[in-house]
Amino acid sequence: MNHLYVIRQLGLLMIVLSLSILAVATWSGVDYARGDVGEWVSLEALLLSVAVGLILGLMLWRVSKGCDDYLGHREALLLVAMSWLVGAALSALPYWLWAILSTTSPLNDSEHLLSSGGGTLHPFMSYIDCYFEAMSGLTTTGATVLDDIHPLPRGLLLWRSLTHWLGGLGIVVLFVAVLPNLGVGGKKLFQVEAPGPTSQGVRPRIRETARLLWMIYFGLTIAETVILRALGMDWFDAVCHTFATLGTGGFSTRNASIGAYDSVAIESTIIVFMVLAGANFGVYYHLIRGRLRAVWSDPEVRLYLGLLVLGSLIVSYTLYDQPIVGTSGRIYAPSVAEAIRHGVFQVVSIQTTTGFCTADFDQWSFLAKTVLVGLMFVGASAGSTGGGIKVIRCLIAFKVMLADVERVFRPNVVRTIKVGRTTIDPELRLSTVVYILGILALFLIGAVLLMLLEPAGQISFSTAATASAATLNNIGPGLELVGATEHYGWFSAPSKVVMCVLMLLGRLEVYAIFVLFVPRFWRGE
Amino acid sequence: MNHLYVIRQLGLLMIVLSLSILAVATWSGVDYARGDVGEWVSLEALLLSVAVGLILGLMLWRVSKGCDDYLGHREALLLVAMSWLVGAALSALPYWLWAILSTTSPLNDSEHLLSSGGGTLHPFMSYIDCYFEAMSGLTTTGATVLDDIHPLPRGLLLWRSLTHWLGGLGIVVLFVAVLPNLGVGGKKLFQVEAPGPTSQGVRPRIRETARLLWMIYFGLTIAETVILRALGMDWFDAVCHTFATLGTGGFSTRNASIGAYDSVAIESTIIVFMVLAGANFGVYYHLIRGRLRAVWSDPEVRLYLGLLVLGSLIVSYTLYDQPIVGTSGRIYAPSVAEAIRHGVFQVVSIQTTTGFCTADFDQWSFLAKTVLVGLMFVGASAGSTGGGIKVIRCLIAFKVMLADVERVFRPNVVRTIKVGRTTIDPELRLSTVVYILGILALFLIGAVLLMLLEPAGQISFSTAATASAATLNNIGPGLELVGATEHYGWFSAPSKVVMCVLMLLGRLEVYAIFVLFVPRFWRGE
Repeated sequence: MNHLYVIRQLGLLMIVLSLSILAVATWSGVDYARGDVGEWVSLEALLLSVAVGLILGLMLWRVSKGCDDYLGHREALLLVAMSWLVGAALSALPYWLWAILSTTSPLNDSEHLLSSGGGTLHPFMSYIDCYFEAMSGLTTTGATVLDDIHPLPRGLLLWRSLTHWLGGLGIVVLFVAVLPNLGVGGKKLFQVEAPGPTSQGVRPRIRETARLLWMIYFGLTIAETVILRALGMDWFDAVCHTFATLGTGGFSTRNASIGAYDSVAIESTIIVFMVLAGANFGVYYHLIRGRLRAVWSDPEVRLYLGLLVLGSLIVSYTLYDQPIVGTSGRIYAPSVAEAIRHGVFQVVSIQTTTGFCTADFDQWSFLAKTVLVGLMFVGASAGSTGGGIKVIRCLIAFKVMLADVERVFRPNVVRTIKVGRTTIDPELRLSTVVYILGILALFLIGAVLLMLLEPAGQISFSTAATASAATLNNIGPGLELVGATEHYGWFSAPSKVVMCVLMLLGRLEVYAIFVLFVPRFWRGE
Repeated sequence: MNHLYVIRQLGLLMIVLSLSILAVATWSGVDYARGDVGEWVSLEALLLSVAVGLILGLMLWRVSKGCDDYLGHREALLLVAMSWLVGAALSALPYWLWAILSTTSPLNDSEHLLSSGGGTLHPFMSYIDCYFEAMSGLTTTGATVLDDIHPLPRGLLLWRSLTHWLGGLGIVVLFVAVLPNLGVGGKKLFQVEAPGPTSQGVRPRIRETARLLWMIYFGLTIAETVILRALGMDWFDAVCHTFATLGTGGFSTRNASIGAYDSVAIESTIIVFMVLAGANFGVYYHLIRGRLRAVWSDPEVRLYLGLLVLGSLIVSYTLYDQPIVGTSGRIYAPSVAEAIRHGVFQVVSIQTTTGFCTADFDQWSFLAKTVLVGLMFVGASAGSTGGGIKVIRCLIAFKVMLADVERVFRPNVVRTIKVGRTTIDPELRLSTVVYILGILALFLIGAVLLMLLEPAGQISFSTAATASAATLNNIGPGLELVGATEHYGWFSAPSKVVMCVLMLLGRLEVYAIFVLFVPRFWRGE
């Protein structure tokens, strides 16, 4: 195992994250200069975090100087897991330092430290809460420990949204550009036609693909920001919500999430960009080349869009004859238009694993909630910023199960399973079904652990189960005590640790974390 | 497809079932002759059922005369599915006819037709309820529609228990003797060393193996009956509970199930026989030959016993410091002895998928209930009368998942997976994991259907989920409204149909039912 190389890359990551925090600090500084006194503590916290991150990053970079430039399977897996673990530790710093500095600052900001819940300390006074928020951001989950977002300074809100954007970018680059080229993970699942010639070896191809992905991601970011601004959001909110949309994260700058704007135009825009963020980014490569037919004949694209439409139809149907309670508290009278509006938004938000809300879906019918929870597990497309099991895996598993029924009465026929024009080889069949079974097992283990870690009788199994599902699949909101209008702050610290692990397992598709617990992985056999 | 041969075998099945009912009628007749006037209607119902069954059976036998004597995959699968469907239809007749005759009989028995619940009609007045009870019996589930068992005449109670015994015998013969020889289903999973020479072809081997299994089953039946009688049960109760134990069914002649006897000796005896009934019957072949070492080195035997011990330890631990409410209503003061007594009994009863109860485990802690529900899915051994996923499948799936994690960082190493000395080939790996995923999917579909079929808000998801789990895995009791002291009678008719399907799917390991819905199966392609 080439530990030094991993350390070097982690150092680089800390430097990059620190520079990202510095960018946020710049915004915060401009706000302060314009007279927003409340930003001062936020600016202090951000700059202090930058300093800590840069010092640590440069130290790691220094100690690993002259290391071997070899990146193998093991190194890549370890690096991926450590990136999110270490990244969250640094990303949590601004929250924590802000909470601490607020109590000691001469511009005492302490009224912000009392949550609206009833005089308890601000959740950010606890580092584990900050870590949860940071992990939730970087894994693009969007589960928050805050019951009141509004008093947070804009610097922290921007950083919170930016973690989504960075995490989403990291995941797309990882699953589309890096891992397939290394032959790791669901290689065939995520393989994108390489933009460069293949004879140049792995590194140039990764760079080439990654560069293209960044360009697409930047392009979408600019487009959504400008449209949201044009539709009436201020620049700050437009940027924050764009970051959260494209990362399929779900953090908002408002307690009522997107419901706060009560604007069909804004909701429609966000629906479109959520759908785009939840599609395989390889699709955009085809689109750029003008290959519309290749995109439309892609079975994952069809099933992804088909499930969004089907889910929207079912959920909207369950809503048309009842009033809908918005997250802002506004009650929408029963109408087909409102049913479609809120049904489509929520289905798209959940299946793309974003987690924005316009209505309190916890009050919806059992059927609607079943569809939403089911879509949490299906999730978005492979190679997108979204989480969940992924549409293509569900499709393969479904075909494998059908073939298995046929195997019983035609045992001697060798069946090939095709997805589009690609034949799914036996190894991929097995690993796909095993993956889904593994996710279900982790979901159940998570739910049971949460039940056992919280005081007996305090939470219902529905709360524990949907908290587990919403973190493992990187959604954000669940049902009941973690519903659309609730938050995760009230969980005990051990439960938060469990959910941090679930978020990470879901985000890195389990294996990158699990291998860390296999002794043979470390011994390098 | 050789339809005529299937019809002929179904005719034979109806004749055999009719003769079984006749045997029960004999007991009922003797009781009547001894002065139990209440048995008269039961005797009428039983004899009428015998007549109907014999007439229909002989008709089927007649119309299929001179059919081709060919039994292929297709025919075997269709026969298996139809056997349980048709068998339950005939087995339900005595219940239904008894209820109808009771209202018209000169010896009007109508007070029995009023359930103790509050003046509603007896459940057996509805044929779907009778079919549910019969299917629950033949699939060795043990879920009952009756909230008050006691007023039922002994003839019906005996028939009810006998359906468990017949269903259990049928399943063992099917999975150990018939299907592996036909190469159907999890062939390698259930393969038993054939007792006869293999050169004689399939039929003689099946006969030989089946004969041995019958002898073992009969031997265990006589042994348990005699021991229960010696421990104080009357002959009737001893026979009924023996039938229910060996079929891993769970119907009792008492409302309080085994808790009614409040006898450690009886409970211990039943624990031993439940464990025996839940073990692979192939094991007894080795035991008869004196091959103790072969039995002890069998990984399924070890894991099966290991899980029973581990489950018992955990559940007993959760119980030691609290009073335990027995199914009889008696409250046992907190003590280590009572905790072990009830913990072991319930764990063994649930994992072997029997479903007898001595205590109301619905009142136990979340951890205890989680262990019990988890063991519902693990289930008993392959080739036993028990249901569930089966211990060996769980073991294989666990090893497959471990190997899959290792595959990620050692992608080029071909790994063999062994269970004991047997190498699990890739096809079996896939079909095992697919099977488990299929069971989980059916469980969820069942739970959601029950929620949707019952009036909104009437039942909790825990009730629906455990009703689905307890029928699919052929257990009997679940939690909350289908808990140890509750029953299934209050479900709507559509829900009962769903649960009949779940019981059948679980019992026949899904495939035999699913293929019936594949058009190609019927076209014979």
